[in-house]
Amino acid sequence: MPVSKIVVIGGAFSGPAAAARARETDERAEILLLERASGVSYAIGGLAHALGGEVDSLAKLDREKARFFRDTYNVEVRTGVEVVAIDAARHVVDASGENVPYDRLVVATGARSIVLPVEGLSEARNVFRFRRLSDLKGILRLLERGAKRVVVLGGGYFGVEAADGFLRRRPKLRVTLVERGERILQDFSPRASLRAQESLEAAGARVLANRNLISVSGGKIARELRFEDGTTLPADLVVVAAGVEPRTDLLKRAGAKTRADGSLWIDSRCSTSLPDIYACGVAVGVEHAVTGKTFWTAQAAVADRTAQVAGANAAGGDERLGGMLGTAIVRAAGVVLARTGWTHGREPEVAVTRIHAPSHDPFLPDASDMSVEIHFDRRQGRLLGAEVVGGPGTDKRIDVLAAAILGRLGVSDLARIDLAYQAPFAVARDAVNVAGTVASATRSGKARAYSAAEVEGAKDFVVVDVDAKRGPGAPAIPLEELRERLAELRRLAEKGPVVFRSATGRRGYLAARIAADSGIACGYLSGGTR
Amino acid sequence: MPVSKIVVIGGAFSGPAAAARARETDERAEILLLERASGVSYAIGGLAHALGGEVDSLAKLDREKARFFRDTYNVEVRTGVEVVAIDAARHVVDASGENVPYDRLVVATGARSIVLPVEGLSEARNVFRFRRLSDLKGILRLLERGAKRVVVLGGGYFGVEAADGFLRRRPKLRVTLVERGERILQDFSPRASLRAQESLEAAGARVLANRNLISVSGGKIARELRFEDGTTLPADLVVVAAGVEPRTDLLKRAGAKTRADGSLWIDSRCSTSLPDIYACGVAVGVEHAVTGKTFWTAQAAVADRTAQVAGANAAGGDERLGGMLGTAIVRAAGVVLARTGWTHGREPEVAVTRIHAPSHDPFLPDASDMSVEIHFDRRQGRLLGAEVVGGPGTDKRIDVLAAAILGRLGVSDLARIDLAYQAPFAVARDAVNVAGTVASATRSGKARAYSAAEVEGAKDFVVVDVDAKRGPGAPAIPLEELRERLAELRRLAEKGPVVFRSATGRRGYLAARIAADSGIACGYLSGGTR
Repeated sequence: MPVSKIVVIGGAFSGPAAAARARETDERAEILLLERASGVSYAIGGLAHALGGEVDSLAKLDREKARFFRDTYNVEVRTGVEVVAIDAARHVVDASGENVPYDRLVVATGARSIVLPVEGLSEARNVFRFRRLSDLKGILRLLERGAKRVVVLGGGYFGVEAADGFLRRRPKLRVTLVERGERILQDFSPRASLRAQESLEAAGARVLANRNLISVSGGKIARELRFEDGTTLPADLVVVAAGVEPRTDLLKRAGAKTRADGSLWIDSRCSTSLPDIYACGVAVGVEHAVTGKTFWTAQAAVADRTAQVAGANAAGGDERLGGMLGTAIVRAAGVVLARTGWTHGREPEVAVTRIHAPSHDPFLPDASDMSVEIHFDRRQGRLLGAEVVGGPGTDKRIDVLAAAILGRLGVSDLARIDLAYQAPFAVARDAVNVAGTVASATRSGKARAYSAAEVEGAKDFVVVDVDAKRGPGAPAIPLEELRERLAELRRLAEKGPVVFRSATGRRGYLAARIAADSGIACGYLSGGTR
Repeated sequence: MPVSKIVVIGGAFSGPAAAARARETDERAEILLLERASGVSYAIGGLAHALGGEVDSLAKLDREKARFFRDTYNVEVRTGVEVVAIDAARHVVDASGENVPYDRLVVATGARSIVLPVEGLSEARNVFRFRRLSDLKGILRLLERGAKRVVVLGGGYFGVEAADGFLRRRPKLRVTLVERGERILQDFSPRASLRAQESLEAAGARVLANRNLISVSGGKIARELRFEDGTTLPADLVVVAAGVEPRTDLLKRAGAKTRADGSLWIDSRCSTSLPDIYACGVAVGVEHAVTGKTFWTAQAAVADRTAQVAGANAAGGDERLGGMLGTAIVRAAGVVLARTGWTHGREPEVAVTRIHAPSHDPFLPDASDMSVEIHFDRRQGRLLGAEVVGGPGTDKRIDVLAAAILGRLGVSDLARIDLAYQAPFAVARDAVNVAGTVASATRSGKARAYSAAEVEGAKDFVVVDVDAKRGPGAPAIPLEELRERLAELRRLAEKGPVVFRSATGRRGYLAARIAADSGIACGYLSGGTR
């Protein structure tokens, strides 16, 4: 059998992973990795952490990994070589003018930062993107020279990660996070976005939403940003993190199919529409494990999983990509936000339950409160998606919920699953169990859960606070007194259905169970007011 | 409808949980909780942490919770009342001489410490069990009076937890952990036991295995422990944590069915064999989610889940208990051990894969190595059980694997599941993914995995070290040179199948893939030598 030649384009993250997997699959293949930058880079995920001083040297790490990669995987790496064209019919790529033939091609060109079409932005030398080690180096150089006023443009994952990194740096910087839309982190619920904003502000940042940048003044050094609403912002350093988009030009020019959202079309074997050409990394669209529809997300897990499949199949394997969940996590100073699965369903059969629970036994120090929101199918009870917001342990709950979704568990399974309990790690009845129990009760109709939006939007609800003797702007009956004050509650209920409100939702839920049992039309505010 | 009267026996953990759940299910029922101690106690899980000074006051916590419980759940609590007999036919219990009638009875008598039949042990006033607040108070009193030499008898979960607590206390104590069997934490693999032992020793403890206590001398104050092998041990304070057993006498006397292992028989609704009597807590046997067989374990999750089901059904609900996984976690000084599912299968169709992977991105501080061992069905690939040993993040991986087992995921699902990635929480290809990938390769026969026991037990294997130029007691070919030294490897392979050995197992695995591709009969040491 002749030795096959596998060419991999792209050295950021999924390219090297695909090359390694190809080697594991075929020990004899000739494998060549081409990267247009001067070095391969494994450390994209570390940029924000290097800003904050949590990482010493990403460059050192990259060098070590590159050597291990070459020696261990026997992959030839050529850097500083840009592939400008693919001739799919002839099985040849044009690499900086040289024709490089291939038997199988793996394209891992990744995503690129969205360029804002703003006057003066691209000329300024103190404006950076946030994708590569070279961006990081430029940013660190300015910080070392005393830049203090940092503006991050873009309130998505990358922007918040960058802002978080700047906020951790000592001595403290003046960090402003600017979002064009109405709130940061729009992949999350409005409530979670607000938690993130408040947390960043508590750490000293300014967070500005609804600010559309129209121009930058100062010439070679951007000194002032001007927004559509007439406001301005001074800056020593600007980071553009206005999102990323799939980098697909090369394959598109070669005739490969793309999708409506701009991502590359691949099948479950990571084959593109062109013969012997595979694609992987954050340029491709993948199937959603819950909806079955194709979606695009710039998460490292997608980059890795597609790289594994593309690399194996390019080397003659037969791997299939499964559905993905779009699991994501981001730190916003003191709070961590995480999501997984399908949380954007607004159909009537999708129900949402939000609960609050401690990260671990509250008699130990550092226990903190987290909110767990689960989205599930009202009829079958099947878990569809989840959002967790809290401190340490947020990552654990979202990962458990991700596994639960992939395993097609229902809310009653969540209620009963036995997770590891010891006081430093959890409570005996974990947040995940509580969410499952409350969701099961909602399904059974025993305690109707209302969202904040439902309650705020309608006038006929009677909101009753059950935490304190007196609630702000609402009648109050403490939960402990509710049983003795049912007559009073009945009078209130004449005006409309009662919604019990409490800080965490738990006491409101209990109140609803008590009142419903006395025949009072009622429900509770899911997730509480916190 | 007449108001039903629900009596709950036991106030430690599952009794109150069952009472609360009964109240949520039926607002009108009369609910009475009887506890023989002087107070209800929620804080069993905190005993070890109070030893180490991590918890200020468990008693305070208990008092606050008891008040919340009474006010919020409207449950009448009578402490200092011991139920000495149940008349199942007449629906009456004898509570310290008073006849208390019930419509439905929930028995949550829990587990009791195993009493060692050792001369002099029960008389000594400096010997304690480790189950109740009163035990803790007695222990703390002696420590405050200057007790320094602490002996913990029993190397199971409770004993290790207690030893861990003592080791955290300042000023430092002299802690000795004594195990009768050949190793501590026998619920885990021998390798994991050894890790725990080494970790406890590194923290200053002595760990003695194969020590069978035969007598205690000193009279009212135990001063010296004497073991069967003739050795002795001086002590100021002795904690007996030699395991627990289901406390079933009361129900047995009333005629309830028990199982061969001594646990109470219940059905999936937590009904005992007696009419209108439910049981919950760590006295009952539950169904194993993987094997379908009944098993008994003294884990808090079992106490909680059975309490939820028993409480709901006693109040007229219709809840069912699902299979349990026996998930457990324990700290042993610097290392955390966790397990879930079925890890005791020795059938040929059960395969085991062990890998090492970092807890989170190693370019950040505090990243540590963890080992993940998964047990799976060789033919179908279905995950059966798992063991994780490491530092922070151990709890996360075991919980993800617990959810995966309950969702009947296979090893290829583990390979692809997208977990939350950001550098402080994980690596893009998480330990769980790596375990799934390596297990998939094992199934496909691409790289045969050998356990340490298999290799040590057989003489015909040729062990080759691929980490260094020279391995202790074995030929060495560094992975990087393997491709150039295949001829040498072939000569070695003439003596028997080659097993590649490396610290983490990863390099051994890669070596096996390389050599197998050249037609050399080989495999690798799963989990490595670390």
